[in-house]
Amino acid sequence: MSLDPARTVAELRELRELTGDENGAQRVAWTDTWEQARDFLRAKVDGTGAVEEIDEAGNQWFTLQGASDRALLIGGHMDSVPNGGWLDGCLNVLAGVEVLRRIAAQGEPPVAVRLVSWADEEGARFGRSLFGSSAAAGSMRDQDELRALSDRDGVALPDALRAHGVDLDGALGARSQLRNAAAYLELHIEQGPVLEGMDIPLGVVLGTFGVERSRFTWRGQAAHAGSTPMDKRRDALAGAAKLALYIREIAAEVGGGAVCTSGGVVTRPGIVTSVVETAEQLLDQRHLDAESLARMLEMAKDAANRFAAEEDIEVEWERIWNIEPILFDETLIGFADEAIREVTATSHRLPSGPLHDAAEVARAGIPTVMLFVQSLRGLSHTKLEDTQREHLELSVEALDRLASKTLAWLA
Amino acid sequence: MSLDPARTVAELRELRELTGDENGAQRVAWTDTWEQARDFLRAKVDGTGAVEEIDEAGNQWFTLQGASDRALLIGGHMDSVPNGGWLDGCLNVLAGVEVLRRIAAQGEPPVAVRLVSWADEEGARFGRSLFGSSAAAGSMRDQDELRALSDRDGVALPDALRAHGVDLDGALGARSQLRNAAAYLELHIEQGPVLEGMDIPLGVVLGTFGVERSRFTWRGQAAHAGSTPMDKRRDALAGAAKLALYIREIAAEVGGGAVCTSGGVVTRPGIVTSVVETAEQLLDQRHLDAESLARMLEMAKDAANRFAAEEDIEVEWERIWNIEPILFDETLIGFADEAIREVTATSHRLPSGPLHDAAEVARAGIPTVMLFVQSLRGLSHTKLEDTQREHLELSVEALDRLASKTLAWLA
Repeated sequence: MSLDPARTVAELRELRELTGDENGAQRVAWTDTWEQARDFLRAKVDGTGAVEEIDEAGNQWFTLQGASDRALLIGGHMDSVPNGGWLDGCLNVLAGVEVLRRIAAQGEPPVAVRLVSWADEEGARFGRSLFGSSAAAGSMRDQDELRALSDRDGVALPDALRAHGVDLDGALGARSQLRNAAAYLELHIEQGPVLEGMDIPLGVVLGTFGVERSRFTWRGQAAHAGSTPMDKRRDALAGAAKLALYIREIAAEVGGGAVCTSGGVVTRPGIVTSVVETAEQLLDQRHLDAESLARMLEMAKDAANRFAAEEDIEVEWERIWNIEPILFDETLIGFADEAIREVTATSHRLPSGPLHDAAEVARAGIPTVMLFVQSLRGLSHTKLEDTQREHLELSVEALDRLASKTLAWLA
Repeated sequence: MSLDPARTVAELRELRELTGDENGAQRVAWTDTWEQARDFLRAKVDGTGAVEEIDEAGNQWFTLQGASDRALLIGGHMDSVPNGGWLDGCLNVLAGVEVLRRIAAQGEPPVAVRLVSWADEEGARFGRSLFGSSAAAGSMRDQDELRALSDRDGVALPDALRAHGVDLDGALGARSQLRNAAAYLELHIEQGPVLEGMDIPLGVVLGTFGVERSRFTWRGQAAHAGSTPMDKRRDALAGAAKLALYIREIAAEVGGGAVCTSGGVVTRPGIVTSVVETAEQLLDQRHLDAESLARMLEMAKDAANRFAAEEDIEVEWERIWNIEPILFDETLIGFADEAIREVTATSHRLPSGPLHDAAEVARAGIPTVMLFVQSLRGLSHTKLEDTQREHLELSVEALDRLASKTLAWLA
């Protein structure tokens, strides 16, 4: 049996019919629709000879026995956000099924080939993303916090997991799954505008951005809009406005794909007749290089202090969350570049802004790489998410060639 | 009986005891506490010979008969915002009581002298300020909207008024009260920092600012904070940030006391991981000169269009509310200057940022002027509102001298 990328597109459509509605994909993890998607996947793998196993974190594995115990992993996730797209996560898994079929048809591979559908990548129901992959990677260290999470209907996370056969306390048992892992491959839609802007179908992901998330709280003085002369004002919004514009200079000066986003400002009292007393400003900064990221944060903090002094207001900085950049494997990046160039004219190397399960696997020390396929208009997490049919087919082909090169390397 | 400004301060304290609590003044219009304040006022006027009348809009009048039917009016308001200050509105009325006593003690004045406590200056309960004075001035034209207003407990405005003897449909009957009015005087705390900044106790108000209130709605494109390169963004917050800073240039260029305030920005989706798609920005612009005010608004609109083009976003302008500048009477301004210089070294002419009942009276064509007494730290509408005791006493004295000069002029 040879590779049939058109079949992957047909199966994606079949899945959309089964688990979506007029508002988009509804495969939210730990729901009946998600179980339907897992059943669907099981049926598709059936016949390849791969053996299914659900691990302690709810990850669904299919293992094709190889000549050695070492394993090549190919992964994705069947879960979606509510009203999600038809490709995010499941393209990866169904392309992996096609690659598994091709390998199985050629007889026993040199190492085991394992397809994994990670549990709850999106975190849509409980607000905790990368659940299954972080358990397998051993980086899940927030079980006490997880225990306290509940969904909007008040269902506690541990109860929801139990209904799908997962015991939160035992989830880290999934670590044993990566014991023999020798390489991890993941295909994903880009969810951004870069490849479309360059008019090329496929790119190699260098790693996932490090992220610094901050809250800057500016404090001035509420004052009557009519009775307070301009030179007597201490306007908290002025500090936030200056920083919202200055972050472009930070990104330009640091370069290397740096991005900075002032995702929102909340002003108080926020009425038309008063100078703004307090402005809470959210800042998200990302870079693939840890030193550059640290410099970006320092620049933002220094500028904030400077603006506060200029405006005679105060500013307080608070870290909301951060994560280091995670770099993918040099050798696998090279294979990915080759694989892409074998199916299309050009390859392009780019960082990933969003996190992915691949980042968790890479953090666990497994050589990892990702392929991105072009997204139309950069849209994702909406039913408008889409990718050209021919690009989807090319992506399956590139993943297959990448898997071949990796198998040869591992052998 | 000679003028006793210390008595006014004592009566203000008495009123605070009676109608305030640990959070400040609670004399919200159309409540029992407000009625208590009106009873208190009635008792204080008692003995002067002035005759009380409550008009169709709930304004409380005390008329001291004069040699002619023409009338000198002195006004203020007993109502406060919730958790308000001890001076806003009632200083005016109680200083007026003291002036009334002094005039009454000297025998029949050349014209009638009428003290008025306007109903619901603050609009704290239903959001409609200057109720009583706009009814008397005949400028109340929003009775259909008023009928639909209700307070936070769901009580309709017409029902609340009826409980205090006022029929909304007949409120404009209060217009007859201004028929013989020849001049209107009002003393008020400044509620701003100008006089304190100049270290002088009293000022003459030139008029009330014209106001232009606008909403600028900026529309860009929501985009992932990680996957969207800086040059692909259409950030609605950038437009709002540029305008929030540019309004200082507008005020500086137009001059003449111009003020511009960006009172708040609401961002959507307002999350740390997304470029801002929509920003709603409130703008308040004020000037004492109508042409300057019109120019300020044009500058803001032109700049907004320029910023939208620079940022590849859209902007929509909407007028929320506007009012023309209202200029006080030149002759009375001269008298007020003289009166102030008789009791303290310096006078200062300044516009009023906030609106006052005096503006409604002036709009009705009655020669009007206001005195401002210094506010500490510019604070008002809070229990922290305060004015030095000696400044309060000087303000009563200045109002008395202004009344004398005006009476002589009218005679």
